[in-house]
Amino acid sequence: MRKIKEHIHGYTYGTAEVPMSPVTLAELKSLKETVGFTRESEHYLQLAGHVLEGQTRQIVRRWRSEIIASIPNLARHSRSLEGNPLPDYLASSSLRFEQWILDTCFRPYDQNWLNYQHEIALRHTAVKKNQTDKVQSTPYVPLRDVVGFIAVMNETIKPFLAAKANSQEEVERMHQAWCKSMQLQMGLWAKPYTGLNEW
Amino acid sequence: MRKIKEHIHGYTYGTAEVPMSPVTLAELKSLKETVGFTRESEHYLQLAGHVLEGQTRQIVRRWRSEIIASIPNLARHSRSLEGNPLPDYLASSSLRFEQWILDTCFRPYDQNWLNYQHEIALRHTAVKKNQTDKVQSTPYVPLRDVVGFIAVMNETIKPFLAAKANSQEEVERMHQAWCKSMQLQMGLWAKPYTGLNEW
Repeated sequence: MRKIKEHIHGYTYGTAEVPMSPVTLAELKSLKETVGFTRESEHYLQLAGHVLEGQTRQIVRRWRSEIIASIPNLARHSRSLEGNPLPDYLASSSLRFEQWILDTCFRPYDQNWLNYQHEIALRHTAVKKNQTDKVQSTPYVPLRDVVGFIAVMNETIKPFLAAKANSQEEVERMHQAWCKSMQLQMGLWAKPYTGLNEW
Repeated sequence: MRKIKEHIHGYTYGTAEVPMSPVTLAELKSLKETVGFTRESEHYLQLAGHVLEGQTRQIVRRWRSEIIASIPNLARHSRSLEGNPLPDYLASSSLRFEQWILDTCFRPYDQNWLNYQHEIALRHTAVKKNQTDKVQSTPYVPLRDVVGFIAVMNETIKPFLAAKANSQEEVERMHQAWCKSMQLQMGLWAKPYTGLNEW
C-alpha cells in the first residue's frame, strides 16, 4: 500500500489499535448506493490516486497553510487553547492528512477502511481529539465545520486532478468520484456525532 | 419571491408557523466562512436560479422518480410503512422540493432562511417527519443518507445548469456555488440530529 512516509506518527490503519467500527459492511453498502458510489467510482479514484500522488504535500499545504490558517474559527483546532502554534501536532497531522488522500484513492473500502473511518471521525470528536498527539487544543471539531469544509476541499482539489496529462473528461470523472467518496465519508463521520439516534 | 405555484401545501417559508432556528446568524456567518461561501457564490446562485427556473419539475423528477425510486433504502421514506405509494405526499413534497431549488438560488440567507433551514431539517427527523402531510411513513431519514445523497444531486444538477446559453466558465462557477450552498445546508441540517453536543 502506498505510504507518504515509512513512519507516520499516530497512523494506525489496519492495526489492532483501531477498534471495530460500529457501522456494518451492510450499512456501508447501502450508503454507497445513496451516494451513487460504483465500480466506476473506484476506477476513477485509483486514477486520481496516481495523479495526486506526489502532490499531496502541496494539497495539504493549500488546505491547511493557505485556507484553514486564514479562518480563525478553523485554525484554532490545530492550535493550543491560547491560540499558539503546535508545530509537532501540525506536522504529524499533516502527514496523516496527506496519507488520507492516498487512502481515499487507493484503499479498498472494506472492514479495515470502515474501522479507520470511524477512528478518524472519533479523532475529530471529544472522545479522541488531541489524544494521538498528546496536545491541548480545542476539545472537538464541530460536525458542521467538518461537513462544510468539504466544499472547499472539493473545489480546490480540481486543479491538482487536472495537473497531469488527463483529458478533461477524465478529470471530470475523477472529480466526481472524489466528491462521492467525500460525501460517503461525511456520512460515516457523522456517526459518532449523532450516536445511534437517527444516524 | 419566485414561487413554483401560488399555493404549495405545507410550504410555510417566512410565516409565523416557522419557529426560530436555534442557529444564530453569527454561527451562519462562521459556517459560510468554512464553506468559502462569498458574494461571488451569491451572484452565481442567482444566475443558477435563472437557469434552473422552468427546469425544477424535470430536476425533481430525475432525483425522485428516476434515482430515489430505484434505491429501496431511500424510496421507503416517501412510502407507507408497508411500502405502498403515498401519491398526495409525493406530490406535495415534490412541489416543496422544487421550491427549495428556487429558494436555494434566490432567497437571501437571512433569519427567515435560517429558520426555514431548521424547519426542513426537522421535517427529516422524528420530531416533524410525516406531520406536514399527515402520513404514516418511516419515522425519519437518517442523516447519513441526507448527506450522502447530496453527491448525487450535485452531479446530476450540472447538465441542467449547462442547459442554457451560459459559457463553460459560468456553468462551472454556478456549480461551485451550488455545491457550497449544499454543504452549508448540510451543516445546518445536521443540527437537530446532533443536538447541542459537538454540532
